Order: sequence, then structure tokens, then C-alpha cells
Amino acid sequence: MTGRPLSLGVLGGMGPAATAEFLRLLAARAPAATDQEHPRILLLSDPSIPDRTEALLSGDDAPLALLHDGLLTLAGWGAEVLAVPCNTAHVWLDRIRAELPVPLVHIVEATLRATGAASPGGAWLAATTGTVASGIYQRCARAGGYRLAVPDDALQRRIHAAATLVKANRVPEAAEAFRSAVLELRRRERIPVVTACTELPIAYAAAGLPPDNEVSSVAALATACAEALYRPGGPAGCMAATGSLKGAP
Amino acid sequence: MTGRPLSLGVLGGMGPAATAEFLRLLAARAPAATDQEHPRILLLSDPSIPDRTEALLSGDDAPLALLHDGLLTLAGWGAEVLAVPCNTAHVWLDRIRAELPVPLVHIVEATLRATGAASPGGAWLAATTGTVASGIYQRCARAGGYRLAVPDDALQRRIHAAATLVKANRVPEAAEAFRSAVLELRRRERIPVVTACTELPIAYAAAGLPPDNEVSSVAALATACAEALYRPGGPAGCMAATGSLKGAP
Repeated sequence: MTGRPLSLGVLGGMGPAATAEFLRLLAARAPAATDQEHPRILLLSDPSIPDRTEALLSGDDAPLALLHDGLLTLAGWGAEVLAVPCNTAHVWLDRIRAELPVPLVHIVEATLRATGAASPGGAWLAATTGTVASGIYQRCARAGGYRLAVPDDALQRRIHAAATLVKANRVPEAAEAFRSAVLELRRRERIPVVTACTELPIAYAAAGLPPDNEVSSVAALATACAEALYRPGGPAGCMAATGSLKGAP
Repeated sequence: MTGRPLSLGVLGGMGPAATAEFLRLLAARAPAATDQEHPRILLLSDPSIPDRTEALLSGDDAPLALLHDGLLTLAGWGAEVLAVPCNTAHVWLDRIRAELPVPLVHIVEATLRATGAASPGGAWLAATTGTVASGIYQRCARAGGYRLAVPDDALQRRIHAAATLVKANRVPEAAEAFRSAVLELRRRERIPVVTACTELPIAYAAAGLPPDNEVSSVAALATACAEALYRPGGPAGCMAATGSLKGAP
């Protein structure tokens, strides 16, 4: 390591268990042998940010101002890089990203980079109904020529319910609901499942499903943040992200 | 729940994995069914705080000013309750606690309350060499007439080494080192082990040791914080903590 890593500002609490899991994975990915070699981390978990899927499905932009305020607060506290361990929130973050004073590590870009590397032939999209309806994953994948398979409405409802159960601290029920949904997806096509809601990796792990069949958005964000903090200037951007999915020209 | 919970300021990074585990347990203990019912959390993980055991053993007070600054920063950001998921740091926190603008949930008091409830007949103290040498646990236990058994120097070195390995992201080695030390303690006397360093519960869990034989300082702090945030005015203070260990008069 040359010099100190950059400071990371995390806008969290969406949900709280996912924020803790993100911090656990980030600590594990830091090239650090002592506490002193880890990055400075500033976290703001703000429960006043409304439910993102409800807002998206009702056309309500209430989360936008709070997300913007939270990120500006973190930058004001000294964050040099920003991250938000919530996929659905990124629908609004895309609208304010250019105005942020410091770079944002984008969870959709990070996750699709990891997905393309793990499974060039395509993957299932497991996300909240808000994320799926927004098309944020599908657009980024399409720009890179990558195939994301989207569950039908009945399966989508079961996947969304699993994410909501994790937020309610009902992880065993979440695991059972998600397990059956994942097994049904895999029965239809045996490609990996992208857990593109930050609660779903918790349900996936609790379900005892095989790690090899999952691309976790929380893990992908943690990996991308460790890279951004210790080796600034690496891969970023939706086209860069998905361009790499096509392989070399 | 009546009204919103209080805001928690967490001075973390001592170490980073322990901070993540603390936030995981706090989220699990919050009486919340949605993200919006969780408390507001402000975290500052500051890697510039020097190693606490090294400072204690060399009589260096360098951590004091940084711990004080960090807690004042969190209060300035709006924290209404403070917590520091690092046992050794509390040696200095005891010197500044009275000057803090908002209450601190004290990890030693929280842990000894949990220990007394779990094992009235005594417990082994597993902590960093700095924490053991400071006597912070022994004093609080003695004030309440509680018996804490302290490992001999050779076992203490193995326990401290396990905590250091967790900080270095070498959890499997930490688990093996701690497992053998715990089995040796339990061979000498079959009382529970207080994991009174926030890295040690991670080593304990990874070692596959029986949960019933452990009182985790991270879990005790998370439980005490959930109580302080949702039901302010509950048990606190070293005498209150250890007084309860004696049982009813």
C-alpha cells in the first residue's frame, strides 16, 4: 500500500442488515494487516428515507432530496468516495450523480462487472419490484450487450417479499421464500442469480444455497469500494462496466 | 414503539470487522419491522487511533485525544447516545466520560450485566493484554462481588494473538488459536468465557465453539444500545451493573 487509502462515505440503513454486511465484506477486502491500515469510514444511516420501491411504483420522488442531502452531508464530513448499499436508491442517484462533489461507486455498474466476469452467458435478475420496474439493471446490461433474464410477475412478488422479510429481521422466513424462488429460477434456466437487492444476499446465505450460483451486489459493491479507496482510477461507468462484459474486441 | 428511537453515534474501526458485527447485531435487536423504524446511526471509523494495547503497555496516552475528538465529532453530527465497540478503548473513555455531552453506553458495564445474568458463579475473562493489564473488567466485577477468572500469562498471550489475527483478516487462524485457548480454560474450570475484546466473538463463532459457553461483549453492547435507544433510562453505571450480579438482597 502506498499512502493512505481514501475516506469512504456510506449512506446506509437501506436496510440496516445490508449496511452491516457491506461493512463486513469491505473490512475483509481491505489490504490491511492492522486497524490502522483500514480506510476512514463515515456512515450515515438515515431511517427517514422513505421506502424506495413504494416511491418508485407510485411515481413519488420523496427519496431524492433525502438521498442528495445525505450524500452531501457525508462529503461535508470529509468523504472522498461515496457508496450507497441499496440498489433501488440508485434509480434516483443516477439523476444527481453528476452534481456530487466526490465520486460515487455505483452498485449496478459494480454488480454487472462482477456478473459478466462470473457468467458471460447471462444471469437471472433478483431485485426489488422497484428496481426491476425502473429498468436500471436492464439498461446497463443492454448497453453492454449482456443478457439479464427477468423473472415473471409471480416469481417477482416472491423475491420482493423475501427482501422485505430481511428488513423485518425475519431472516429464516426470508431464506425459505427466497430459496424456493431461486430453485424455480434455476429450474427454468441454470444460470447464476444476481442478488441485486442488498437484502437478498443475506437471504441467499441463510438459505444455504451454493455460493457459486450467486453474484452478490453487496459483495460486488464492497470489492469495487476497496479498489476505489486503495487504487483510485480503476474501472467505472456503465459503458466501461458493460463494455468489459463483451470481452476483448 | 412510541416516538422515534434516539440517534446512535458509533466510534468504530477498532477493529473494522468488530464494528460491522456490532451493527449487524444492533440491527437484529432493533424492534423494527421496516427500515424506517430503525434508529439513525452515525459511524466514524478512524484508523488514525493508535493500537490501544501497545499504548497501554507503554504508558502512552496517544489514543485519548483522538477518542475524545471522535466522540465530540459524533455528538456534533447529532448523536444522542454514544458507543465504542472496543473494550480496550474504555480504559481512556472512563477518564473523559463525565465530560461527554451525551451518554455513553459502556461496554464493560453492559458485558458484566450480561455475564452476571448468564453465569452467577463466575466467568473467564478473555480480552486483549491491554484490557487485562488495565484491570478495567476486574474492578467493575469486584465492585459487584462477582468472580472473574483471569488466564495465566501463557494463555493470555494466545488469546491476545487471536484478537490480533482477526484484525489482520486471518479469521481461520484466529479461530484455531482461540479454540485451543478456550478449550484449555474450560479444562481448568467449566465456567463461560467472556469475549471481552470485540474481535474475539468473531474468532469464537468461526471456531464453532458452543454459543452457550460464551458471553460476547459485542452482543452485550448491541443489546444495551438497543435498550438505550428505544427505552432510555434503563440500567447503567458500574455499581448498578454489578449490583444486579448479586441478585436480590
